[in-house]
Amino acid sequence: MKKEDKELKHAIAQDYETGEVLMLAHMDEEALRLSIETGRAHYWSRSRGKLWRKGEVSGNEQIIKDIFIDCDEDAILLKVKQIGGACHTGYRSCFYRRINGEIVGEKVFDPEEKYGKKEDK
Amino acid sequence: MKKEDKELKHAIAQDYETGEVLMLAHMDEEALRLSIETGRAHYWSRSRGKLWRKGEVSGNEQIIKDIFIDCDEDAILLKVKQIGGACHTGYRSCFYRRINGEIVGEKVFDPEEKYGKKEDK
Repeated sequence: MKKEDKELKHAIAQDYETGEVLMLAHMDEEALRLSIETGRAHYWSRSRGKLWRKGEVSGNEQIIKDIFIDCDEDAILLKVKQIGGACHTGYRSCFYRRINGEIVGEKVFDPEEKYGKKEDK
Repeated sequence: MKKEDKELKHAIAQDYETGEVLMLAHMDEEALRLSIETGRAHYWSRSRGKLWRKGEVSGNEQIIKDIFIDCDEDAILLKVKQIGGACHTGYRSCFYRRINGEIVGEKVFDPEEKYGKKEDK
């Protein structure tokens, strides 16, 4: 199912202890409701067109400590305890590179081990 | 001018010292280029359909200390020194409320003083 971007809110996940920004994703109404109800981050995948619980495959889930909403109510900020790494590439944060390409992030898991080889994805 | 969302990158501004997430906005290619060249945050306003330098009216500019890009290159993380407050409502951060509406942010300026009365906006 394709959702219009106007039905989605941006969602920033931030480490609740260190303040590290981990990832930027999107939530539909159900993802936000499930996140609040279960205390685990749920998102809407725009590329796959479906609801998604962070860590459902990798185990790298996000335990929600607090949730904030911005002034115009189109962005959510989640303070989370990140299990393992947030990024599907194996880095702790999706923002593991400077804009010039320099890698500064910390690799914390092997994505092939978590998700299988690329052809199985 | 209306830009397709696919031409825009999400842009998160974060306080470079405290780690506080200040706002979520968008950048087109020119806004990113100008941000890099000038060291001051520029964004693309989706609602006004134009390029915008943060602080051009309010003086509350963002001095860029570092720029990161995410794994799939559709989101930017700016580490900034925020002059005054980031939010047009007068709060330091746009994420000044919990999802239940509780206000937890710090009000740092009077928006009427900075932008004029609502009818003049």
